[in-house]
Amino acid sequence: MARRTGRRPGNPDTREAILTAARQVFGERGFDQASVRAIAAAAGVDPALVHHYFGTKDNLFLAAMDAPADPGELLPQAFAGGPEEVGERLVRLVLGVWDSPAGVAALALLRSALTNDWTARLMREFVTTQIIRRVLGQLDLDQAELPVRSALVASQMAGLLVVRYILRLAPLSTMAADEVAAAVGPTIQRYLTGPLTAAAGAAETTSG
Amino acid sequence: MARRTGRRPGNPDTREAILTAARQVFGERGFDQASVRAIAAAAGVDPALVHHYFGTKDNLFLAAMDAPADPGELLPQAFAGGPEEVGERLVRLVLGVWDSPAGVAALALLRSALTNDWTARLMREFVTTQIIRRVLGQLDLDQAELPVRSALVASQMAGLLVVRYILRLAPLSTMAADEVAAAVGPTIQRYLTGPLTAAAGAAETTSG
Repeated sequence: MARRTGRRPGNPDTREAILTAARQVFGERGFDQASVRAIAAAAGVDPALVHHYFGTKDNLFLAAMDAPADPGELLPQAFAGGPEEVGERLVRLVLGVWDSPAGVAALALLRSALTNDWTARLMREFVTTQIIRRVLGQLDLDQAELPVRSALVASQMAGLLVVRYILRLAPLSTMAADEVAAAVGPTIQRYLTGPLTAAAGAAETTSG
Repeated sequence: MARRTGRRPGNPDTREAILTAARQVFGERGFDQASVRAIAAAAGVDPALVHHYFGTKDNLFLAAMDAPADPGELLPQAFAGGPEEVGERLVRLVLGVWDSPAGVAALALLRSALTNDWTARLMREFVTTQIIRRVLGQLDLDQAELPVRSALVASQMAGLLVVRYILRLAPLSTMAADEVAAAVGPTIQRYLTGPLTAAAGAAETTSG
């Protein structure tokens, strides 16, 4: 859910028209290429009104996705203690949202992305631009490797969510978040900052 | 698809009744507790007829799941070269099936498991008893750790399939199977045979 901004809610039809247009344009062009101007045009309103209702493009995207949490607010927690255990802290952070009451909305969103190509496209944009890009931006990494690292992180996170919350495979479905984070964290850590193959890892160990 | 056994196909209504009963009983009791006798009773036929049509309980399960490949046939390939790179070979094997024409059926099955609790239950039984148990049975592991290792392997495999074939997140969706296996293999390998937490890994390195 997007945060309340303290502004009056305005015309609900206009808000809804902007959100519908935003889903359309974000899905078609991707987050980076979708301009507030284009979304306003698709909704038939003035761009200033979009800013008035939703603030930044990031916030508009959160509202359009009906996102259960704001990664921009949460992610700094994962980096508070330095880059060494970011993987483990990220898993704990994600499970914290999913184990909370907001998890119901998150699960609905994931299920929808798994069955609907349009939601899948929006979800892909959301995960890539709102979560993983921010994470990778905090780490000192080879730019050329970012897409593959990003997709690998997404693969383990998506699988963890599917197995814990949809397939409900024990004991991953019942273990405490901290235990899961301890087991899965090193995988996320390697995908973020480690060698991308066993061969590369062996070479690094030999030379280091 | 279950293999053709060379037997005559028999009465298609009887076959279908047995398969429906099998899905019911496997889903309700799990693979281990589901007896051929109980399935035959649920279908209203003699147990001998179930054996006649489907052979073993494993084969009946494959047919009931409409499984696109027989793990019992494929998995020995992953162990042909010793236990060191089983993780990588398993990823290559799974992607081999999913990148083949059989992948269409596999994807339909996964999508169904993600949206339907009953199929999810059958899928969980299938993955656990037909794939992961066989894999773990080949490795010399602490019995108490098998469930968590099994669920961790499932989490990375499920996530890889979701990201590559459903969400189609580049570059994981377009990379060659060998490249994906090189990157994801070490994760599966650690979940199978490695230390289950970073702390345990560090202790092992120190003492080793």
